[in-house]
Amino acid sequence: MNEAASAQPASESPEPPRPSRRDLFGAIGAGVAGIALGAAGGTVATSAALSGGGRGSGTGTVPFHGAHQAGIVTPAQDRLHFASFTMIDGTGRDELISLLQDWTVAAERLTRGRDIGTGVAPDNALLPPDDTGEAEGLSAGNLTLTFGMGRELFAGRDGDPYGIRDRLPAAFAPLPSFAHDLLEPAQSGGDLCIQACADDPQVAVHAIRNLTRIAMGRAHLAWSQLGFGRTSSTSRAQDTPRNLFGFKDGTANIMAEEQSALGEHVWVGAEAPAWLRGGSYLVARKIMMTIENWDRTSLQEQERIVGRTKLEGGPLSGGAEFAEPDFAAIAEGSAAAGPAIDVDAHIRLAHPTQNGGARILRRGYNYVDGSNNLGQLGAGLFFISFQRDPAAFVTLQRSLKGDLMNEYVRHVGSGLWAVPRGVRAGEYLGQALFA
Amino acid sequence: MNEAASAQPASESPEPPRPSRRDLFGAIGAGVAGIALGAAGGTVATSAALSGGGRGSGTGTVPFHGAHQAGIVTPAQDRLHFASFTMIDGTGRDELISLLQDWTVAAERLTRGRDIGTGVAPDNALLPPDDTGEAEGLSAGNLTLTFGMGRELFAGRDGDPYGIRDRLPAAFAPLPSFAHDLLEPAQSGGDLCIQACADDPQVAVHAIRNLTRIAMGRAHLAWSQLGFGRTSSTSRAQDTPRNLFGFKDGTANIMAEEQSALGEHVWVGAEAPAWLRGGSYLVARKIMMTIENWDRTSLQEQERIVGRTKLEGGPLSGGAEFAEPDFAAIAEGSAAAGPAIDVDAHIRLAHPTQNGGARILRRGYNYVDGSNNLGQLGAGLFFISFQRDPAAFVTLQRSLKGDLMNEYVRHVGSGLWAVPRGVRAGEYLGQALFA
Repeated sequence: MNEAASAQPASESPEPPRPSRRDLFGAIGAGVAGIALGAAGGTVATSAALSGGGRGSGTGTVPFHGAHQAGIVTPAQDRLHFASFTMIDGTGRDELISLLQDWTVAAERLTRGRDIGTGVAPDNALLPPDDTGEAEGLSAGNLTLTFGMGRELFAGRDGDPYGIRDRLPAAFAPLPSFAHDLLEPAQSGGDLCIQACADDPQVAVHAIRNLTRIAMGRAHLAWSQLGFGRTSSTSRAQDTPRNLFGFKDGTANIMAEEQSALGEHVWVGAEAPAWLRGGSYLVARKIMMTIENWDRTSLQEQERIVGRTKLEGGPLSGGAEFAEPDFAAIAEGSAAAGPAIDVDAHIRLAHPTQNGGARILRRGYNYVDGSNNLGQLGAGLFFISFQRDPAAFVTLQRSLKGDLMNEYVRHVGSGLWAVPRGVRAGEYLGQALFA
Repeated sequence: MNEAASAQPASESPEPPRPSRRDLFGAIGAGVAGIALGAAGGTVATSAALSGGGRGSGTGTVPFHGAHQAGIVTPAQDRLHFASFTMIDGTGRDELISLLQDWTVAAERLTRGRDIGTGVAPDNALLPPDDTGEAEGLSAGNLTLTFGMGRELFAGRDGDPYGIRDRLPAAFAPLPSFAHDLLEPAQSGGDLCIQACADDPQVAVHAIRNLTRIAMGRAHLAWSQLGFGRTSSTSRAQDTPRNLFGFKDGTANIMAEEQSALGEHVWVGAEAPAWLRGGSYLVARKIMMTIENWDRTSLQEQERIVGRTKLEGGPLSGGAEFAEPDFAAIAEGSAAAGPAIDVDAHIRLAHPTQNGGARILRRGYNYVDGSNNLGQLGAGLFFISFQRDPAAFVTLQRSLKGDLMNEYVRHVGSGLWAVPRGVRAGEYLGQALFA
């Protein structure tokens, strides 16, 4: 395929002189797929995946700028590459700001499906290309890049190298230990995180790789995780996907269409410093699943653990997938006449009515990291949630202490980041934090 | 989504009484996507991915039965899950045959996008479901399952537990050590392998998981590898994809349309025992790429190493992507007047004209396994090739001893398997081996 022949006239400036095949895809995607949602300024993209096409087929673009960062209420794309970064010792405020500035410029281009910097083939061939090239020719794939800041940036070091200690929000406390934690430091924490979601995994990997490269000398990759299949919907337009227990997941999730619930449970409000208002908190948990054991469990037991039917996903108290669970219902035909939904079923313990109304927006992904030395798949759920206050996650996770599902899961990674509000044109990521 | 409401009448029998959502997808896929190719009996499927849709959007079905196994000349799907298995100590011929029989039944159903056995929700809820369920509601995604047999099954154990020692083909020699091997046993070898390719990674993972489960008590998973992006085309209808060096890969691959080249270089012929005729040999190599170092290399140096331009993929001797390289051409405007394609460039050393005409059919995938403890992405190429004789791969790999690219790659995993011919209706995989 000839690059020059398929290129379209640039629709804006400045652009590098060398045209890019990706310009074509970007222009098409922006035209047909990008729509703004609601007065709150959050933006979502429709995609082929939402309109009956195959999974992973979305080729549109999701606007980078907005009141909120994209990748939170954006209809969950099918693939994930999540990365955590550590600021290099000796860096200070200037390095952190310059990194956020450079990431902003790159993220705006990447989410439009464009090369970064000098592109794949700079005019001066004696320089390394700025763009690593493996996404050349691919569409934007509905890529979103969502950035978060770890607590250690504010208060985790001697002194105050980044000069933001006094900007630490009161709610931004470290996550406590939970009953079933088996956390591995090599898969936990980090000063900065990037959640890259796209309908094409090569687009998500390309974004993380290039943002990692840009960070060189200022921050290095601490750990990263690929996820191959979304386990939550974040829009009513999406089918409910299945996790690796084979159950529909995220049926009761907060959806992009629930503007008032988003304001109440997801977006940080006036309780926080100005830089975080309109932002959120991101919790990530790497949850290993012992799927081989699960697979040997009877259907009845699996359904009892979850509290829903496996095929349809309806609550065991009756009704179809989206029926409200009735936790007072008694099992029909049961000799023991116990509750239809077990007192320790996952959906009961996780339900807002059991947790003082706490709700979170889930956005997790199935993963398989090869296999372990026991001949088992290294499989699980890379859980991601967004919430207005980390305390909501803590409440829910503590409530799950007695969850029947705990026999089949281990939390091996964990992280918490503050996600600044969206970037306006001309701003850089988190700019208000340094004002 | 209500399962029963969307089910279609079964188009064939016997089927389990419970209808499946996947029946619908399967029927559509078979109708519009499955076509037979050529007199050789090999089958390929067209897919949405080939007709201008996004990557990873193929929802069709690829026939399981045929003269050759699917997944070799099938237009390379976008995603991979590859698994290697070890037969459990003490198993014998009966266990191996029963495993191959059970895998055959399951593979035929999985590739049609159907549940296996009792499905996701058996009528007897006191039993574990036969199907783990995470692919429920998904299309067949052009899934192919390609099975191979390792040399250790024939001649690697005391005695002859599987009674097939005398069926070992003369060409089936172990791969030798190569100059840059750093092989890890935990990612190498195996008695049996399954290459699962699909346009939806969740479909490929589901297949490997369920086939692993079926093997329980007879074989266990030795290692497995996910690949997120194909790096080769195997049909002229496909765009050439890019590897993680950012270059187009597989431009000179053997294509499904080259019937005579397939017969000469891919399908095993009369030189082999009857059970392998119409089959092939599968070589897998896990090739780690030091992409951080690569990315710091100038465009000129990258192109010199590969022997092609980065953007278009044309040979440095001139012309567009599919132009034949001219290894005698002298670099224009070069003060040193050296060859346009370096004497140690990858495409020169790998070219058939430099290797006595040896050709292989490549079918590799990009992978990223998180990151390593140096703050680098664990990235690379999971190389897969099919060839009529392993000696062709050995010839090419030995020729690459001086390849300039070796500075940026490490071979960390390796395997070689004999791939029996395709399964005819009523047969099981590799049946002729036991006749």
